[in-house]
Amino acid sequence: MSSGRILLAHGGGGELSERLIREVILEGLGEAAPGSLDDAAVLKAEGRLAFTTDSYVVSPIFFPGGDLGRLAVCGTVNDLAMRGARPLGISLSFIIEEGFFVDDLARVVASVRQAALEAPVKVLTGDTKVVERGSADGLFINTAGVGLVESPGDISLSNVQPGDEIILSGGLGNHAVAVLARREGLSFQTEVESDVAPLWGMVDALVEELGEDLHALNDPTRGGLAVSLNTMSAASGVAIEIEEAAVPVEKAVAFAAEMLGLDVLTLANEGKLVAAVSPGTSSRALGVLRDRAYGARSARIARAEEGSGVRSRTPGGGKRIVEMPYGEDAPRIC
Amino acid sequence: MSSGRILLAHGGGGELSERLIREVILEGLGEAAPGSLDDAAVLKAEGRLAFTTDSYVVSPIFFPGGDLGRLAVCGTVNDLAMRGARPLGISLSFIIEEGFFVDDLARVVASVRQAALEAPVKVLTGDTKVVERGSADGLFINTAGVGLVESPGDISLSNVQPGDEIILSGGLGNHAVAVLARREGLSFQTEVESDVAPLWGMVDALVEELGEDLHALNDPTRGGLAVSLNTMSAASGVAIEIEEAAVPVEKAVAFAAEMLGLDVLTLANEGKLVAAVSPGTSSRALGVLRDRAYGARSARIARAEEGSGVRSRTPGGGKRIVEMPYGEDAPRIC
Repeated sequence: MSSGRILLAHGGGGELSERLIREVILEGLGEAAPGSLDDAAVLKAEGRLAFTTDSYVVSPIFFPGGDLGRLAVCGTVNDLAMRGARPLGISLSFIIEEGFFVDDLARVVASVRQAALEAPVKVLTGDTKVVERGSADGLFINTAGVGLVESPGDISLSNVQPGDEIILSGGLGNHAVAVLARREGLSFQTEVESDVAPLWGMVDALVEELGEDLHALNDPTRGGLAVSLNTMSAASGVAIEIEEAAVPVEKAVAFAAEMLGLDVLTLANEGKLVAAVSPGTSSRALGVLRDRAYGARSARIARAEEGSGVRSRTPGGGKRIVEMPYGEDAPRIC
Repeated sequence: MSSGRILLAHGGGGELSERLIREVILEGLGEAAPGSLDDAAVLKAEGRLAFTTDSYVVSPIFFPGGDLGRLAVCGTVNDLAMRGARPLGISLSFIIEEGFFVDDLARVVASVRQAALEAPVKVLTGDTKVVERGSADGLFINTAGVGLVESPGDISLSNVQPGDEIILSGGLGNHAVAVLARREGLSFQTEVESDVAPLWGMVDALVEELGEDLHALNDPTRGGLAVSLNTMSAASGVAIEIEEAAVPVEKAVAFAAEMLGLDVLTLANEGKLVAAVSPGTSSRALGVLRDRAYGARSARIARAEEGSGVRSRTPGGGKRIVEMPYGEDAPRIC
């Protein structure tokens, strides 16, 4: 089982499926694996439950700084965290193309395990399907997550208030550049690594520090900061003004983005959060975030105001409108 | 938006994504749609929570009696129901191949809506990804579900007791035969329709009637009744003996299975349940099931005993061992 390729029969629900699930997936998940093979898991829950899902189709599956497995855990845990919810558990569903290497699946499962332990979260239930060669591109993963909302207030995209200060937990664009560079076979002097990481630890600390002064959270994934801020602006009925000189970007990322003709404000991230907090509370928020590995380069980058739309003050002193991106420069980034 | 084809940019997270989600998915879901576009939904939950997921890759997407959308709702709601859980909500995640017809997506969404209203369950959150032409086969859907366990006892595959009576809620094999016949372009005198249906209504009635006398539930999907009973047998440490003459099978299904050389005990179903109940309680269970449209042909088909493995008493009086199927005769049946 530890080598060879996935067969259609591995998805049939019979003995071969069971062996794949037991020997590769459950053993690979180790202490992160579900306790039973019932089709649904049962857990205790009291309170406000957060529920989310994402399918992950990133290409290539392995990229500098992470892989599809780490992405699938972090992306979903982060969507829970963005509602102020501590992750309770995730589901893990594979769609595998016939002929995919069992060793590669095992490597992805090992990443799922590691990310789950870090998050921390358990895999509670799952599913495995196999489709014929040519009917999928290697491996797709869906994870759904359930979490318990621990924030006292209503953390929501529609809860940004005029005057709120907006902070970002670190440099933009690493994930998109890492994936694109690997996909296109580009290499830069300094290799850019994806930032893919679980964010609950930082959110937990923010909720504790700020309580109801934490108004909105978002992770700038597809479409980047431009989508995060435009979505907040539209949902909350406020204008947002970015101080572009304050937005952290690694040098290698800025260089690569310029080479590729991409605006870093639209590049996908998988380990960053944007938070809107009450006026005067951003220093406390930054203090909490900068204490943590994934938030060391946190910065105050924008302010909410009466009005609508997202504008950016450029380093030269001019202003530009930051529009909702139309489509996407880079498909299959997550 | 109502015609044309899906573009890669529809998956980019920008304006085009938002239009697809708003105009095709949310409008199509109608009253079954989520209330907000936050990445995670928040709901109240008190008690034992059931959590499950499945990815659906059926080919073809439209088949007699149903389609991928109806399947994706029913399959997940049924996995919740099999733990005695009333569905609270589902997630809905699409992986779409570039070039897929928007009209076909709208048709699938309309089916999701109808099945969700029937279940009944709401779509609480979702996700949409688009991959390049040739990187998926049209449309894949993942749904995850959360539900509240309402049964007093522990309904589980490992809870079958020696002496338990085992009932089946109707004829076997309709789903597999309907999909295979459409895929292979076969036609029979009587068209076989898939049985795809939500089962919570029947489970609710069973739980109310039997209480703790309802020991185990399973829906015989991939690998059919053979997988259901072998899984129960192995998980509970009991032998199961099937009375093959008592197993309901529609004439047209039996005929098609024979033509195709398939064993009906291994064929997938998407609207049937198998229940293990305390000795002497199966008549009450059958009374409850037969009152409902999806359970009209319910029958007592087997008994659990001390021992191990699954055997079948054939109509001729002989016995055969019903093994866990090895792989699958028919890929992409669900």
